[in-house]
Amino acid sequence: MCSPEIVRHARDGAPRPNRRALFGLAGLAAAAAVVPAPASAAPRPGGVVDLTHTLTPRLPVWPGNPPFAMVPVAWHASGGFGQSALGFWEHTGTHLDAPAHRIPGAATTETLPPGDLVAPLVVLDISAKAAADADAVVTVADLDAWRARHGEIPDRAFVAMYSGWERRLADPSTFLNLDGGGRPHAPGFSGEAADYLVTQCGIVGAGVDTLSLDCGADTDYGAHTALLGAGRYGVEMLAALDAVPPVGATVVVGAPKHAGGTGGPCRVLALT
Amino acid sequence: MCSPEIVRHARDGAPRPNRRALFGLAGLAAAAAVVPAPASAAPRPGGVVDLTHTLTPRLPVWPGNPPFAMVPVAWHASGGFGQSALGFWEHTGTHLDAPAHRIPGAATTETLPPGDLVAPLVVLDISAKAAADADAVVTVADLDAWRARHGEIPDRAFVAMYSGWERRLADPSTFLNLDGGGRPHAPGFSGEAADYLVTQCGIVGAGVDTLSLDCGADTDYGAHTALLGAGRYGVEMLAALDAVPPVGATVVVGAPKHAGGTGGPCRVLALT
Repeated sequence: MCSPEIVRHARDGAPRPNRRALFGLAGLAAAAAVVPAPASAAPRPGGVVDLTHTLTPRLPVWPGNPPFAMVPVAWHASGGFGQSALGFWEHTGTHLDAPAHRIPGAATTETLPPGDLVAPLVVLDISAKAAADADAVVTVADLDAWRARHGEIPDRAFVAMYSGWERRLADPSTFLNLDGGGRPHAPGFSGEAADYLVTQCGIVGAGVDTLSLDCGADTDYGAHTALLGAGRYGVEMLAALDAVPPVGATVVVGAPKHAGGTGGPCRVLALT
Repeated sequence: MCSPEIVRHARDGAPRPNRRALFGLAGLAAAAAVVPAPASAAPRPGGVVDLTHTLTPRLPVWPGNPPFAMVPVAWHASGGFGQSALGFWEHTGTHLDAPAHRIPGAATTETLPPGDLVAPLVVLDISAKAAADADAVVTVADLDAWRARHGEIPDRAFVAMYSGWERRLADPSTFLNLDGGGRPHAPGFSGEAADYLVTQCGIVGAGVDTLSLDCGADTDYGAHTALLGAGRYGVEMLAALDAVPPVGATVVVGAPKHAGGTGGPCRVLALT
């Protein structure tokens, strides 16, 4: 809403007045310009929680993948604008797994239905067992326990595993948690639970706060296969899942949209 | 919601039943498992409109910038997963302009408040004058005309210019529309209108369906300076703005989040 109060705050560099305060100025605004009553604004979310890690060259990546890279290519002193070139493999940072990541010829990033990127968010907290077992998985029994406590999983939900793994990012070696053979060990979904979520609950996608939908011990990648094989998408390396409720928020997955992509960094926001 | 009906549809590969139909199955689901009443789901949007172009090497970029590049680096036949490496300059495709793109030391991608990425969407249609003048701009008079027709601009809005320019993408040379000196000419915001939106309307950001917030004739980049200089963000090369109403939708800007970024490709969704 346009008002003189905004001008003062914008020019002072002071925090802008909140929405409630601005409504009190509606009279002033109306006096300043003859316009119809305010348009009915779209429903506003109560809050926005960022479920995305900041991408840096220090963020752990799957063993063998290169770190995120960024090189300045334009400067303000020459042309008035700064800009960097970016280089990375698709499955870096908080990122999408499109079905084609696992299944040759399956859906790529640009073909995911936009409607599937906005979904009721369900968070399954397995942090207690993950603290005791790096290869802990979300099981069908965990899903049953969640439903007994919180109710049915909403239709077309995005179901995320919270294992507390991001606390290990302070020391990337503990986040990767490589065994002697160089394989990472971290929690994920069991193949059975992933299959159940797809076939019985009609989810649009699933996410984890670790580097893989599968736990490190699952060398058959059962969760990847169940989810991506059914045309659903995954999101790996989610952040701050402990800051959203088990159910009730809406997730918006800002998935990449490059032709033929198997995935890529994405901005994931929860509207609470 | 988990139900036997989902199983049949998922296995058939048929379209999943819609939400309304599923509610009719609540009784079946309840009979199958003793769970509390369905959790109260978050409000669901009426629809999702994708305001993002698909990134390809053929998508026009600002003169002098390289095209988007993608190279396969992992194959399903070797390891079970496909993946590509991506390389591009930040201001490619449908992309964010962070304040630091224009102002040295200003906010970079990872420091934008997440709450500013979810906003009431306002669309200003200047396609009629853009058809007659490639350097057409949104003026303060256009803002007044919009308000007279649609009401006040909502508080903390994201205001987008629709010029119809994307129709030129079928022939990228007409989208770029270079003059004899190699400078692109396309519509944008006037510096005055951008300043008005920031100082009088308290917008969080502004977007265009062209490659620049400024029209090609503005070699002082008045709109970039007014918006980014005030700590607001821009989004360039938006798609499908003719598929959303002038007001009433909520935009979610899936901005990139790399440390020190001046911008980058982003997924922009409108919830209608």
